[in-house]
Amino acid sequence: MIIIGIDPGLANTGWGIVETRGSLVRARAYGCISTKPTEPLNVRLGTIYRTLTEVVGTYDPTDMAIEKIFFGSNHKSAIATAHARGAAMVAGSTLGLNVGEYTPMEIKKDVVGNGVADKYQVTYMVRSTLGLDHDPKPDHAADALAAALCHAHTIHTRARMAAANREVC
Amino acid sequence: MIIIGIDPGLANTGWGIVETRGSLVRARAYGCISTKPTEPLNVRLGTIYRTLTEVVGTYDPTDMAIEKIFFGSNHKSAIATAHARGAAMVAGSTLGLNVGEYTPMEIKKDVVGNGVADKYQVTYMVRSTLGLDHDPKPDHAADALAAALCHAHTIHTRARMAAANREVC
Repeated sequence: MIIIGIDPGLANTGWGIVETRGSLVRARAYGCISTKPTEPLNVRLGTIYRTLTEVVGTYDPTDMAIEKIFFGSNHKSAIATAHARGAAMVAGSTLGLNVGEYTPMEIKKDVVGNGVADKYQVTYMVRSTLGLDHDPKPDHAADALAAALCHAHTIHTRARMAAANREVC
Repeated sequence: MIIIGIDPGLANTGWGIVETRGSLVRARAYGCISTKPTEPLNVRLGTIYRTLTEVVGTYDPTDMAIEKIFFGSNHKSAIATAHARGAAMVAGSTLGLNVGEYTPMEIKKDVVGNGVADKYQVTYMVRSTLGLDHDPKPDHAADALAAALCHAHTIHTRARMAAANREVC
């Protein structure tokens, strides 16, 4: 399975492509889409949508994992993120991806084992889990890879539980 | 000039097409895109994006006028609206429309002459200005037509001011 993880943001949207085979998992690519505050909002959202469409066209994922908005963040910042998140989810929807949404806490709990882990711990565990020889940068890309890993684990766990249930029946 | 006005919302996104010739203005069509709370967010946003893309394909506007988010609204509701707004603006961006953003107060001030007008006053003035023989319904569609009217007036005023400046120079 190939998954695109997304850490949405209006100024910086991180993305990361993860491929799984059984319990094996590796990173294919990652990056960050940056837009300028001086550009009109529609131009910035168009850039996010078009770039994600290109990335999906290149790596052909079947699934998208996207961070939910942290409701503790300030009103203005959360609204900016929601615009970017809308653009990213439209890309997922129009390209026919299965979309999974996870809170930052769910992702950290899954990847680090601690729902309030800091960004250094997230980067360290993403690097370690994916066997990278360097820290994925910027943080937005690391967070996107973490979202993809969380989705991979969630799908893997669901499949194992379904198989176990079939055995019991 | 043909303008599509948008009143964005996750449950209901109003749209309205207005055509202007000089100072004459008429409504071409209007409607409302409704999505179900039981559907996943990506499906709802995909519906908004695809429907607006179809509407733009049918009426071929050059401009999009879209309501800004009212920051006094509650956090959860504003975030839901921002997602829908992101989907609508991606449609505007990918289809190459000029996008104008207006606060609810700017639209009411322009269409009714009172920035805190209620929805009945907005509907009445939209109906009257566009010479409709009925109230445009639902309110989301009336608000979308109002946004389009506000944009039409703004563009018209800018053109007149530019012409006046040229005469002075």
